[in-house]
Amino acid sequence: MSLEDGKRRLAFLFYPRSVAVVGASKNTKKMGYHALKSLIEGGFKGPIYPINPGYSSIFGLKAYSSLKDVPGEIDLAIIVVPAKVALEVLEECREAGVKGAVLITAGLREAELEEGPRLQEELRRIAEKSKVKVIGPNTFGMVNLHADLNAGFTPSFSRIKKGVVSLVSQSGGVCHLLMPYILEQGIGMSKIVGLGNRLNVDFADMLEYLAHDEDTRSIALYVEGIDEPRKLMETARRVARVKPIVAFKTGRSRKADAASKSHTGSLAGNYELYKAAFKQSGIVVADGSLELISKADALAHQPPAKGRRVAVISLVAGLGIIAADTCEAKGLELTEFTEETVSKIKKLLPPFTIRTNPVDLGFVANDPEKCGEAIRLVFDDPNVDAVVVNYIFSWSEDFLLLPIEAIISSHRETGKPVTMCLRYPHGVWDVEKESLRKASIPIFPTPELAVEALKALVEYGEYLSRANVPF
Amino acid sequence: MSLEDGKRRLAFLFYPRSVAVVGASKNTKKMGYHALKSLIEGGFKGPIYPINPGYSSIFGLKAYSSLKDVPGEIDLAIIVVPAKVALEVLEECREAGVKGAVLITAGLREAELEEGPRLQEELRRIAEKSKVKVIGPNTFGMVNLHADLNAGFTPSFSRIKKGVVSLVSQSGGVCHLLMPYILEQGIGMSKIVGLGNRLNVDFADMLEYLAHDEDTRSIALYVEGIDEPRKLMETARRVARVKPIVAFKTGRSRKADAASKSHTGSLAGNYELYKAAFKQSGIVVADGSLELISKADALAHQPPAKGRRVAVISLVAGLGIIAADTCEAKGLELTEFTEETVSKIKKLLPPFTIRTNPVDLGFVANDPEKCGEAIRLVFDDPNVDAVVVNYIFSWSEDFLLLPIEAIISSHRETGKPVTMCLRYPHGVWDVEKESLRKASIPIFPTPELAVEALKALVEYGEYLSRANVPF
Repeated sequence: MSLEDGKRRLAFLFYPRSVAVVGASKNTKKMGYHALKSLIEGGFKGPIYPINPGYSSIFGLKAYSSLKDVPGEIDLAIIVVPAKVALEVLEECREAGVKGAVLITAGLREAELEEGPRLQEELRRIAEKSKVKVIGPNTFGMVNLHADLNAGFTPSFSRIKKGVVSLVSQSGGVCHLLMPYILEQGIGMSKIVGLGNRLNVDFADMLEYLAHDEDTRSIALYVEGIDEPRKLMETARRVARVKPIVAFKTGRSRKADAASKSHTGSLAGNYELYKAAFKQSGIVVADGSLELISKADALAHQPPAKGRRVAVISLVAGLGIIAADTCEAKGLELTEFTEETVSKIKKLLPPFTIRTNPVDLGFVANDPEKCGEAIRLVFDDPNVDAVVVNYIFSWSEDFLLLPIEAIISSHRETGKPVTMCLRYPHGVWDVEKESLRKASIPIFPTPELAVEALKALVEYGEYLSRANVPF
Repeated sequence: MSLEDGKRRLAFLFYPRSVAVVGASKNTKKMGYHALKSLIEGGFKGPIYPINPGYSSIFGLKAYSSLKDVPGEIDLAIIVVPAKVALEVLEECREAGVKGAVLITAGLREAELEEGPRLQEELRRIAEKSKVKVIGPNTFGMVNLHADLNAGFTPSFSRIKKGVVSLVSQSGGVCHLLMPYILEQGIGMSKIVGLGNRLNVDFADMLEYLAHDEDTRSIALYVEGIDEPRKLMETARRVARVKPIVAFKTGRSRKADAASKSHTGSLAGNYELYKAAFKQSGIVVADGSLELISKADALAHQPPAKGRRVAVISLVAGLGIIAADTCEAKGLELTEFTEETVSKIKKLLPPFTIRTNPVDLGFVANDPEKCGEAIRLVFDDPNVDAVVVNYIFSWSEDFLLLPIEAIISSHRETGKPVTMCLRYPHGVWDVEKESLRKASIPIFPTPELAVEALKALVEYGEYLSRANVPF
């Protein structure tokens, strides 16, 4: 299969015109129930074909005995059957001309079962013969919010907003771990993919595909182990020139390594080596689960930074000090403002305030004009490459107004990247959050994460510079 | 003032029978409005006296021209007046026999104002003469949920559940930063104190007081700088024998150090020195804002661990691998189970599962009996000192049941500490969360935080052992 052909087939998989669910069930104790439910509740617009010889209809949809009985074309088959039946079903996919499959079925390559590896090999052979692109096996499935496609077993993924961040994860569990955070922070997502045991779609294939996916602006990878590290790095090096990639690599420890082998059937390898290889290939490194999605969020919505000189602005001194500490701990440079900026800020802010970096807006908090003016001065300073703004909700009612307009316009006019810590009790600033999101300002629940996210923009800028890619 | 006398006076401050708000206002643009509103909405049961010569009543309460005009005794005065009037008001506190004060007023010691330090010295002199204990100046105030006392300017603090964690923070901003997390995780709090510029109540005084506060079981400190580090360490060494203390220290970097001086008027000092001193004094070190409150949560609700040997149990392999990685990165030991445990788990769980540490429950996820049995086996293993359990919500409806009973009873029967990552879309497992909370099982939104929290229990156990305190 040529590269182009492969990408076209992945396009069918992520943007199918019709979907079959093999192993669909009415029994709430079966995964096939939850898979069909997810697809329907996700609002998929094309025809849905439940496949199960035991039913004539499920959820009001006509059910078929097998894929071959379906009258129309099938672009995507979601397969939720026991391991031993998977071979047969994949063979049927071939016969029915199915273009892509999500193989939720587990118990194959990762198995201690003697026949596990043999089964997986057999599956791969059939898939290759039929040119069926397969996500899985041993996956929760995948979601493409732009196609209203929830091809997994968890309906809640459909509650996520459409957006431009794609997450490709070896572990479906990690997708589930991040989902509530994505919902709370209002991160818009494009694809969320559980790669599982990677029959014939691996990280490199996904990078290749997502590089050209118009609905994707940044790619987050959760990696436990890699079968073909060289292929991944080479692909990443090319893709990173056009689209930012961030990776969180686990299975670092000796014991976790063994666990990962058992989990998805690949060795995790030496972490430091991976980290160096990632950096060299333009992949931004994340050091935790929330860092991963936070960095991807920033990379999708903000431009790369032209340098490491960071300005910290904070509604309250404490958050500014945490952000400043984190900057220095993470190797970013807390910039010195020009004398002109310092003297202007001194005129603007009262004397009992921190008026150099970090800048403390506390004593003019209820004066959005002055806060906005201070923010503009900081963005305009030629010694500033990137800005972190920290706000928490204090007081009650409308005492505290967010200087949203100043943040958005300063960012737009200077082209300098900004990340924002915005934290408040449920409901208080939802409208403001929405305005910031609409203007592509990414928001984070702690100053630490806001700085980590900004660091990703700095590192991506450094990669593009090294690679001579103008930005 | 003797130590006992000082503690008695702090008790009046945190459990006042009556409260005056000096500078109370009807003007929503004034801090005095938000302070009075917070106190009233917080449900304080005793008499409330608004003090402002410009009003005859505020919020339906009779207003007084000055503290001296109040007919009854005043235990606590919340002072929200401009810096230059503060002296006069504190003098009035003395005359009116006020026992404690929360001095929200800012612009004193931290000021670049020439008269700042002089003003703060003058205030201290008056406070000492009158034996008035003062929280502040330059603080959001403080909250004691056990007295329905919101003596700050942010009503939302009153939405926090009553509990046994006390937070003492140099920065009010950090209290506000953590508040939404506290609400979301359902952490029960006792006192939340913004120390500000510490006129005559410093970290050491708070430790001294909270050591004997029956409503407090763990103490979290957010520290930027310390005036008398030796006094703090000596106090901590004594207090840590009876109650766990955890501290997050910022102002580490050179620039943040300067900012901290400007913020609350004290030098932040060398971080590594502080870290060593903290450890020696029995203070558990936290390395971030969420880590601080997470560790305090675990320390308040779980016993210290008897050793470093950790078992990881996870509904899904991915979270188990993240937790295992974090354990090893943080110096905890991923334990080896006994042969007996291994063989029992092998009988219990299907072969395509990770059945050694970390233990993967994924393939029996919808069988709470088997999950419970695996959890019991792990807790019972003599090679296990502490346990991390990781659950995320997957599927839909009631397919996935949490083995709550097994977790709670195993923990109780073995006395081994446990922390739990529990993450789900809003609303799904609120009842389960409540049950776990009631049984003192602390829950965290990521495996990383669950491990960090467990590490606090390990380190506190090590301190108690070193100090020959039986536990």
